[in-house]
Amino acid sequence: MRIRLFNGKVLALANGFEVVCGEVWVEGERIVYCGSSEGVTEVPEFDREIDLRGNLVLPGFKNAHTHSAMTFLRSFADDLPLSEWLNQQVFPMEAKLTEEDIYTLSKLGIMEYLTSGITANFDMYVNSDAIAQASVDLGFRTVIVSGLNNFVHSLKGLEDCYNKYNHFHPLISYQLGFHAEYTTNETLLKGVAELAHKFQAPVFTHNSETLSEVEDCKSRTGMTPTAYLNSLGMFDYGGGGYHCVYFDENDIQIFKEKDMSVITNPASNLKLASGIAPVKRYLDEGINVAIGTDGPASNNCLDMFREMFLVTGLAKVREMDASVVDASQVLLAATKGGAKAMGLQQCMDLSAGSYADLTVINLHKPNMQPENNLVKNLVYSGSKDNVLLTMVNGKILYENGEFFLGEDVDEIYEKCNEIVAQIKGL
Amino acid sequence: MRIRLFNGKVLALANGFEVVCGEVWVEGERIVYCGSSEGVTEVPEFDREIDLRGNLVLPGFKNAHTHSAMTFLRSFADDLPLSEWLNQQVFPMEAKLTEEDIYTLSKLGIMEYLTSGITANFDMYVNSDAIAQASVDLGFRTVIVSGLNNFVHSLKGLEDCYNKYNHFHPLISYQLGFHAEYTTNETLLKGVAELAHKFQAPVFTHNSETLSEVEDCKSRTGMTPTAYLNSLGMFDYGGGGYHCVYFDENDIQIFKEKDMSVITNPASNLKLASGIAPVKRYLDEGINVAIGTDGPASNNCLDMFREMFLVTGLAKVREMDASVVDASQVLLAATKGGAKAMGLQQCMDLSAGSYADLTVINLHKPNMQPENNLVKNLVYSGSKDNVLLTMVNGKILYENGEFFLGEDVDEIYEKCNEIVAQIKGL
Repeated sequence: MRIRLFNGKVLALANGFEVVCGEVWVEGERIVYCGSSEGVTEVPEFDREIDLRGNLVLPGFKNAHTHSAMTFLRSFADDLPLSEWLNQQVFPMEAKLTEEDIYTLSKLGIMEYLTSGITANFDMYVNSDAIAQASVDLGFRTVIVSGLNNFVHSLKGLEDCYNKYNHFHPLISYQLGFHAEYTTNETLLKGVAELAHKFQAPVFTHNSETLSEVEDCKSRTGMTPTAYLNSLGMFDYGGGGYHCVYFDENDIQIFKEKDMSVITNPASNLKLASGIAPVKRYLDEGINVAIGTDGPASNNCLDMFREMFLVTGLAKVREMDASVVDASQVLLAATKGGAKAMGLQQCMDLSAGSYADLTVINLHKPNMQPENNLVKNLVYSGSKDNVLLTMVNGKILYENGEFFLGEDVDEIYEKCNEIVAQIKGL
Repeated sequence: MRIRLFNGKVLALANGFEVVCGEVWVEGERIVYCGSSEGVTEVPEFDREIDLRGNLVLPGFKNAHTHSAMTFLRSFADDLPLSEWLNQQVFPMEAKLTEEDIYTLSKLGIMEYLTSGITANFDMYVNSDAIAQASVDLGFRTVIVSGLNNFVHSLKGLEDCYNKYNHFHPLISYQLGFHAEYTTNETLLKGVAELAHKFQAPVFTHNSETLSEVEDCKSRTGMTPTAYLNSLGMFDYGGGGYHCVYFDENDIQIFKEKDMSVITNPASNLKLASGIAPVKRYLDEGINVAIGTDGPASNNCLDMFREMFLVTGLAKVREMDASVVDASQVLLAATKGGAKAMGLQQCMDLSAGSYADLTVINLHKPNMQPENNLVKNLVYSGSKDNVLLTMVNGKILYENGEFFLGEDVDEIYEKCNEIVAQIKGL
């Protein structure tokens, strides 16, 4: 399939924040041209030519931390203290899910990503087979990360998954990881560190999400989670942390030295009353910052626009300085920062040769007007409502409010509601 | 015009949070029936019947604090410290606006409200004529509030406007107010208080938005802004405050005793690094809480969904308790709380006899599924993208992404960009 997107404003993110009036050509799964329309004299034949009418095309957002299948818990258990939420609501409900349920619930999450211009996710959940199949079946790009802990999975399973899902399908890759320091014993952690060395691979985990998590780790090990894990050799090939709300100076230096990524989840950190991450510090130190929605049970929506505003807004109020963490830094975190953390080197920007993972933003809406500054408009006033089109791997999966997934979407909604009814015992 | 919305889920907000499968009938500018479809045997003739396909109809949101015409400053001056933003960017730009500019820029703001299910705004800006005309011409409901201060307007002008705009058009009303304590001298303030007594009317103003505002007032008067203004008799007939980020116990008691409204503006308070308002305290004390977007220069978008999530999310992280300020409290603030603050007693809910100000929410989108709890879905995962229809005063002004305003919307965008270019001297 050869697709031409023309007559648009192109924010390729390959040359800073330059916006050119131009076009993007897609052939198969890759971008073959991206740039100005000037100098384009011969236009090859396309299967489809889309007139962008002056709208904006940019790389798709990367949702760098989520648990997609938790869609079933959206609006089920909210407004509860964290421990009650987790132990009395989330865990007992999750225990009842089948693989088929996770497959269907993951699809619902992917659909929501597409409405927000998100073209890839970094997904941690209990069943990799179901996640991978849902993504492949819908044509979505997923980096799976292991959620190994004392209760689910094993080191053998982790290694098998690493080998399997890095050679499963072009849309799927796999990163080493574990749920969190506080749910994973030292034997397992040492095993993960060994795998990191064996594969020379980065490791990802929930890290310093709450103050009590950090304090507990310090009483047990005498170190912060970051320092403790690092002492096991966990991050010798890099990696990253989800949340990173409570870091001390030493933690920051470890992340810097090991070229690791901070994946911030601002909406979840608000809703679960975890805190506000020091994103300004991370950026000042040159640490790669990516953005994740976290799962729909704790957010509850999967919307990169809301997250982008929160990253800058919360940084500003945390530092009590309206000038910190500006829109361009946030947009980079939501796109290239995510791609870097997730190991998606071919999804960094819209330069020729990259995978055709992109989104088109409707500028003909009041919240995008006037066009004083397109990057600031995107980050400060953008909305799902502006997403005209989302393309993953060269295929248009969402356009003008409709999904093109080869599936009856109302049936997916119905199935999800049935799963919830069954789990609730209705 | 008689319109029937049927086959929907109706959240009238007239009986708590009860959702009934039913319909809403509109005749002229008012609702004539709202409720279950059971028992509806005879359906009168309608000019238009809209099948809601199971989607949700609820009262329109009330944007209880804004400066609509500041759309021209969207993404023009961001990421700056507050004083630099205000004195070097906002004020010099505003000084160049004509009445015609304000008329056009207000229209752009109103269009954005409609995309977010907002059916009324509480608008403070320098030119009431332009604001009123823009609202009347587009069919939007506006409560104008005076922005009197040392530099613009006069007490005579305020009184004239109060008399004129409370008898101007059914869509327009007017409330006494002034910009802020720190921009308005005591002679003027005493004059406003006299008008409050003369008209037995409430008074509204920016109040305790920043810590330095409160500290400065205390050094000058020995009192907080709330206590000082109250000492002048300003609030003897009630009123309210925009922002209310820094209140002490005495301020809270004054608001409680005088039955005043707190109008919270969470996105603006983040973006300008002002702080996080103690909304939980206000609600615990039984103070009426309403929600405003503030102007597009300081937010930068006019989206009640983003504000609703922030009201609860910021309260949770402020109190470090995930259970505070739940979704139902937030939804009430965004609807009835706003209507109460703005004096829109006939726009409180969807009961028969009320003005037909409503919005229809698309539940057939992934972020609204599964339907564990519609109110929580609205507040925690709702988006502009879910707004199918917005009706003001019995007229559909926005439907399926299109505006029905009797105007060429692209021309409005173009004019706004021209205004910006002219002001920038391009």
